[in-house]
Amino acid sequence: MPFVNIKVTREGTAPGATATTPEQKKALIKGVSDLLFDVLGKPHHTTFVVIDEVELDSWGVGGVTTPEWREQQRASAGLPEKP
Amino acid sequence: MPFVNIKVTREGTAPGATATTPEQKKALIKGVSDLLFDVLGKPHHTTFVVIDEVELDSWGVGGVTTPEWREQQRASAGLPEKP
Amino acid sequence: MPFVNIKVTREGTAPGATATTPEQKKALIKGVSDLLFDVLGKPHHTTFVVIDEVELDSWGVGGVTTPEWREQQRASAGLPEKP
Amino acid sequence: MPFVNIKVTREGTAPGATATTPEQKKALIKGVSDLLFDVLGKPHHTTFVVIDEVELDSWGVGGVTTPEWREQQRASAGLPEKP
Amino acid sequence: MPFVNIKVTREGTAPGATATTPEQKKALIKGVSDLLFDVLGKPHHTTFVVIDEVELDSWGVGGVTTPEWREQQRASAGLPEKP
Amino acid sequence: MPFVNIKVTREGTAPGATATTPEQKKALIKGVSDLLFDVLGKPHHTTFVVIDEVELDSWGVGGVTTPEWREQQRASAGLPEKP
Repeated sequence: MPFVNIKVTREGTAPGATATTPEQKKALIKGVSDLLFDVLGKPHHTTFVVIDEVELDSWGVGGVTTPEWREQQRASAGLPEKP
Repeated sequence: MPFVNIKVTREGTAPGATATTPEQKKALIKGVSDLLFDVLGKPHHTTFVVIDEVELDSWGVGGVTTPEWREQQRASAGLPEKP
Repeated sequence: MPFVNIKVTREGTAPGATATTPEQKKALIKGVSDLLFDVLGKPHHTTFVVIDEVELDSWGVGGVTTPEWREQQRASAGLPEKP
Repeated sequence: MPFVNIKVTREGTAPGATATTPEQKKALIKGVSDLLFDVLGKPHHTTFVVIDEVELDSWGVGGVTTPEWREQQRASAGLPEKP
Repeated sequence: MPFVNIKVTREGTAPGATATTPEQKKALIKGVSDLLFDVLGKPHHTTFVVIDEVELDSWGVGGVTTPEWREQQRASAGLPEKP
Repeated sequence: MPFVNIKVTREGTAPGATATTPEQKKALIKGVSDLLFDVLGKPHHTTFVVIDEVELDSWGVGGVTTPEWREQQRASAGLPEKP
């Protein structure tokens, strides 16, 4: 009876989206449940999946918030600032 | 100094409610704190309880989202679709 | 389909025990599951409970580890040091 | 930069194993990381996966511990007790 | 590659604020990442920090919600009720 | 009343150590509690810190376990294999 918690930043990765879309959530839930069955033989009905979306400025990496981190990575790669 | 995290789907279980009500939250907090005292002797003031409500389509079971899962259960029990 | 995570320090609270006993774990699991049913109507078979025991020196409060904290509390109450 | 926490009971599902094997852990880590890339486009190096194994009697479902739950399920299906 | 999760009640502690401010989040992220580097030598780019803000009435202590707990503490200290 | 959970890989970073040392745990607990006080004004006695150590092969990054990831990083930097 596995429990899987997926934490991602709340932002759009599909065209026009500003958050994880319902279709993406379904794909994550199905994918993780299939994986637990394939690898450990866990029946699907015993696997719980909880997706948490975290605001970009509440997620830190490299000692700064995610938007600052991406700006730093972009700059160090010689790319222009995000408009 | 126990820490208890309760995750439930965000939905109404009291009449007219669309989320866990303040009274239900109080009952959960009191019940868990009493339990920790009764079973392990933990003083009430040392027990923290955090209740997380998770959107229905961010909670998966059986490889699908909670609303889809309930529809499947209903159908397999021969019950009509939820209106 | 609630998920409850109970974190406690690993230590004996029953006579002669050095950790949460199997009976105490059963009582915690039953108590939490009953509570979710009584307060929110959640069927028992949909509630998962996970108990984590944390080493005393990995749990901090008041800026110090749990054993140090208890010693401070004892001293400030004018009680003798724990032998 | 997703963070995924997988909690499973500590028990063997591969022949002769008494816990999740190193190969199974690798398959879970790879599978989850691939999934996050396929569904959300998250680069592999930004995904963390943490696998927690939980003792069977610290995991509750149906108001009882996992071993008791399985015994109940077996009995209600008319199967003999596990030797 | 540490992962740090900070849970606080959602409330203002800066003048005029009703939640943790962006500046406070930055200070928490930087402070925790510096700490992990100073104590364990963990490079900044390998540390993830996630800040969760929890509604006041979803956080319990002493068997009651946080606002009730504070009122109790205030009363027992002989202070007037919060207006 | 903040709750902070620090997850790190179980490995020695101090000379001769194979895990986080008691002194390092104390420094992490003190540092985090000081930070919550400095940034948000949270009194020390209301802050709980829990440190989890995770086995190296239960922590994944880049789609592989931590030891494999480090070997890849070392190789791509032209460094010799770890003896």
